[in-house]
Amino acid sequence: MADLMENEVFKAFTTYAAIVILKMMLMGPLTGYYRMTRGAFSNEEDVSRKSAEDKKKLLRTHPEVERVRRSHQNDLENIVPFVVIGLLYALTAPELSAALLHFRIFAGARIFHTVAYVGALPQPSRGLSWILGMLVTFSMAYRVLSTVLLL
Amino acid sequence: MADLMENEVFKAFTTYAAIVILKMMLMGPLTGYYRMTRGAFSNEEDVSRKSAEDKKKLLRTHPEVERVRRSHQNDLENIVPFVVIGLLYALTAPELSAALLHFRIFAGARIFHTVAYVGALPQPSRGLSWILGMLVTFSMAYRVLSTVLLL
Amino acid sequence: MADLMENEVFKAFTTYAAIVILKMMLMGPLTGYYRMTRGAFSNEEDVSRKSAEDKKKLLRTHPEVERVRRSHQNDLENIVPFVVIGLLYALTAPELSAALLHFRIFAGARIFHTVAYVGALPQPSRGLSWILGMLVTFSMAYRVLSTVLLL
Repeated sequence: MADLMENEVFKAFTTYAAIVILKMMLMGPLTGYYRMTRGAFSNEEDVSRKSAEDKKKLLRTHPEVERVRRSHQNDLENIVPFVVIGLLYALTAPELSAALLHFRIFAGARIFHTVAYVGALPQPSRGLSWILGMLVTFSMAYRVLSTVLLL
Repeated sequence: MADLMENEVFKAFTTYAAIVILKMMLMGPLTGYYRMTRGAFSNEEDVSRKSAEDKKKLLRTHPEVERVRRSHQNDLENIVPFVVIGLLYALTAPELSAALLHFRIFAGARIFHTVAYVGALPQPSRGLSWILGMLVTFSMAYRVLSTVLLL
Repeated sequence: MADLMENEVFKAFTTYAAIVILKMMLMGPLTGYYRMTRGAFSNEEDVSRKSAEDKKKLLRTHPEVERVRRSHQNDLENIVPFVVIGLLYALTAPELSAALLHFRIFAGARIFHTVAYVGALPQPSRGLSWILGMLVTFSMAYRVLSTVLLL
């Protein structure tokens, strides 16, 4: 067991996987923050202390809350595949420098993607960071399937 | 390979990861059950046997179906990070008792979270179980990054 | 580390996990394609080059875009559990033939599920492929929990 965690590539994978997963998890509290500051909730029990009139107003969607939620969803759609493919990639024993290049570009691209999405930066900033993250994962998947293919 | 599955901490991780993933998977059939009993579908082909008038009525959203779907989404946002961070955490060779404490609290918190969400229990029951699950994952991530950091 | 990737069952898992994750990832670009061809966007910055009148028209939902998005969501809800349970299953050292049977059925069922969903094929084609994928994951989870149970 200790073997895996003594391997440099696996340590690098562990570090970056933890970073991007933590980044993704922070979208949850961020959604909560936007819900409270913008006054937009989905569940009746979340506004149970308010007056009947306020309740109606608070049970609504808000464009900025929806924006944060779309950013969270995009993380699920991209960071989870990165973690799965990245784990398999790390187990194919790539060069440490090549692995670090993949992991660093992905982490940077996804952090920028969140800034671009939540901050509504002009396109193509968000689009390019999304594509860059996908290309990193495709590149790792290519190595995985060309090293280990048992259909 | 057999090495991993002979390790007590990894066996504990395997057990709890399977439990929480199965719990998450059950939200799919639960959504189906709510869709059928509440009569609220998303796809035209799902109501193709009905009369034209019924179709219109059945292709709608229903608050209880949406509630189950939000609960499912919350599982995706929280259980998937737990599994990823938990796997890396198990590989850092923590004490079995510490690992079991993390895994048990998380599993309990998430099962309660589903009950609180689907049953629309008064807040802060759902909020606290959500935070408790997040804290467990953050605690494991802290150990992972403080043991293995290769940027 | 090299040990895992020399194991036949783990190689088979790696192959099929990469295939279904790549299939899931392709739903992202497919959503983009549908958004552009159907003219239905969620973010103002995505239509910033258009005239004010066009913007209003383009910031909308479109049934076919929503269909692709539901298909993507269903992948997240089913393929991610398969990958997690499949990894643990591969580590319980099953027979290669049994493992391949599980992986092949799952991959086939999910590829068919996407075709049935995006193509709006008549039910129960989509429903059956969804259930088949779930049964494969449940079968693997049963072996995992009956082999390794440490509560």
